[in-house]
Amino acid sequence: MVRISLLGYGVVGTGLIELLEKNKDKLENIEVVSILVRNLEKHENKKFSEILTTDTEEFFSKETDIVVEVMGGINPAYEFVKRALSLGRNVVTANKDLIAEYGGKLIDIARRKDVNLKFEASVGGGIPLLKPLLESLEGNEIKSITGILNGTTNFILTKMSRENLCYSKALREAQKQGFAEANPESDVMGYDAARKLAILSTLAYKKKISWKDINTKGITELERQDFIYAKELGYQIKLIAVSKKVRNEVYASVEPALIDGDSLFSQINDEVNGVIFHGDAVGDVSFTGKGAGMLPTASAVYSDILDIIKGRGELPTKYEEEVIIKETTYDKSSLLIRMKTNDKRSAIKAVREKFNKAQLVGERKDEIAFYLEIESEVEIIKLLNTLIKEGKINSYTRLPKVS
Amino acid sequence: MVRISLLGYGVVGTGLIELLEKNKDKLENIEVVSILVRNLEKHENKKFSEILTTDTEEFFSKETDIVVEVMGGINPAYEFVKRALSLGRNVVTANKDLIAEYGGKLIDIARRKDVNLKFEASVGGGIPLLKPLLESLEGNEIKSITGILNGTTNFILTKMSRENLCYSKALREAQKQGFAEANPESDVMGYDAARKLAILSTLAYKKKISWKDINTKGITELERQDFIYAKELGYQIKLIAVSKKVRNEVYASVEPALIDGDSLFSQINDEVNGVIFHGDAVGDVSFTGKGAGMLPTASAVYSDILDIIKGRGELPTKYEEEVIIKETTYDKSSLLIRMKTNDKRSAIKAVREKFNKAQLVGERKDEIAFYLEIESEVEIIKLLNTLIKEGKINSYTRLPKVS
Repeated sequence: MVRISLLGYGVVGTGLIELLEKNKDKLENIEVVSILVRNLEKHENKKFSEILTTDTEEFFSKETDIVVEVMGGINPAYEFVKRALSLGRNVVTANKDLIAEYGGKLIDIARRKDVNLKFEASVGGGIPLLKPLLESLEGNEIKSITGILNGTTNFILTKMSRENLCYSKALREAQKQGFAEANPESDVMGYDAARKLAILSTLAYKKKISWKDINTKGITELERQDFIYAKELGYQIKLIAVSKKVRNEVYASVEPALIDGDSLFSQINDEVNGVIFHGDAVGDVSFTGKGAGMLPTASAVYSDILDIIKGRGELPTKYEEEVIIKETTYDKSSLLIRMKTNDKRSAIKAVREKFNKAQLVGERKDEIAFYLEIESEVEIIKLLNTLIKEGKINSYTRLPKVS
Repeated sequence: MVRISLLGYGVVGTGLIELLEKNKDKLENIEVVSILVRNLEKHENKKFSEILTTDTEEFFSKETDIVVEVMGGINPAYEFVKRALSLGRNVVTANKDLIAEYGGKLIDIARRKDVNLKFEASVGGGIPLLKPLLESLEGNEIKSITGILNGTTNFILTKMSRENLCYSKALREAQKQGFAEANPESDVMGYDAARKLAILSTLAYKKKISWKDINTKGITELERQDFIYAKELGYQIKLIAVSKKVRNEVYASVEPALIDGDSLFSQINDEVNGVIFHGDAVGDVSFTGKGAGMLPTASAVYSDILDIIKGRGELPTKYEEEVIIKETTYDKSSLLIRMKTNDKRSAIKAVREKFNKAQLVGERKDEIAFYLEIESEVEIIKLLNTLIKEGKINSYTRLPKVS
């Protein structure tokens, strides 16, 4: 008999209970023994209402083999998961904030106690990602990870692109449809994607990578005009999380980027997520699917539970090796540059002198936009800063093309 | 110490040895003890030439824990794998012909002997497919599988589409570049895709599905004109393997189909493969990557070996339940129909009478082409057969749209 208890009974917890019930015939030896909630009344009409408790001590006093943390947030999830592991209980969590912040510490405790800590649902929701990365691609050295890792921003960008909406209108639409939270900061600023990229990169490169070291730019500054230019050039705009390993350095960033119509990512719309791993043996392999939601996330939590029950899961590894995280530069790539200027003629001349193949894609009242191929990003940044210093332009924005 | 021996030392075997050597530091306890080949001279300059043998008895007399079958084909691979399993040795194979034909029998022996039989590389080459399907999506009931499962045909179709080539020219090009064999029958007739679809469907639906029961149509009849019409309609043409489970029946087919420009499959070009599983909890999840090749295939074989060594692999399950395989019908879908006729006017009139929204997409000397939405495929087939009986058309071809 395997005893499972749940920390939290919200959307994902409810989805998990639904999957466990649906698969009951296959799972004769599983019993849900306790569910810790904040408010009994809220859940009294749900299944298993008889084993709900608001009493933390009672919850932890119940003998259990696997604690499933689906409450979200750092506090008190961190204390609870630490306590569960310290009591020698396996833990499955869907909590990316927790793993991105305290994954290493929690893995330490798990290994010391010889229990498992699994977190497939923390990145990409229902998409199988961590298991394929760690097990199926084990013979590969992973060279890069490129992903659309946040469903909220992808939903907003899809709206902006398809319906020609400005950012704030598209955000409101996303909030209305339940794809964005009332306080959307973590999603729209790119922090959520950075956390997921840090988790993936840590596992892929086997080095300690902190999400806070990742250069992160959100989608809040994007304007309708960016989408107009992008469309003219045949591109879409997506929030791209990318990391790559070059010798002992890791380059990582989260930022909006231009996506070619030929790219797989151009078809990843709405709340869907997608990741491409590049392995030295296998080349590019991609995974797409719903990155959030009740049953997709529960599907990943369920598979972690079964891994533990069936003894398929190895203990997680903690990586100690410090690594320098550099900002991704887009060398030998193309950029869309928008410049605010009071002196369009001089600015255009200056850009063309330096980049004779630069394509002027737009000219508006106080703005010019160029699309240009660059050998190294440094040279264009240098030019733009010179133009600012010389007063030829006032400011600029850039969108790199990700191939 | 884990002892590995190889049946065959061709492309995949060479790739596997390369991966094992590359990962040597991580794999201190693995030793390659014997490699069975047909011709010693051919391999004398390769690594491990000192453990090559052409003597089957000598090969099987060497104590070994895992036998890796990378010789391909049914004979003598089937006898060798049976013998290895009967001797209580785990087997890893990349051989889709073998698994599609004798998978059930081999699993029987493996289970009796309590050893493992793994075959991740048999479908989709380096793309993690079987492990995610069996383990990561275990909480789901899989409702359908849609895939581009054959790299050779995908390469040919991409060529035909991009370069406006006829089938035989594109095939020759594929042969020249090593993407098609001298005898391409198994690929171009769709048999290879049908075998892979049968393996995936068996595992997904947990029923015995024989590839020979799958209605299979290859790409040899496709003409340049099909691609011209498809492009006009905004579609691509791909060889699509599709199966779905409806109650206790499985619908399955392999045939060329129209793919929307918005579909993920429209971006899967050249020799790349892609699969979408639809699970009742997770929704659509897709996997893409190189479906063949030395290192991609070796990457999957390597992960199977590590699963066995690390005890991550469960024994495979044999499914006995017979199931009725029906041909997929494209109901509530759209079709491109090309009709040969000596009486275009009557044929057009007849089609329009029955399908008033039918779109005439082309009219050539003895041919008309319609694109039409249908409620059920039966009604259009009935009409077309009536038109043939009445002498209004001589023959027809159809391309369904897969969404």
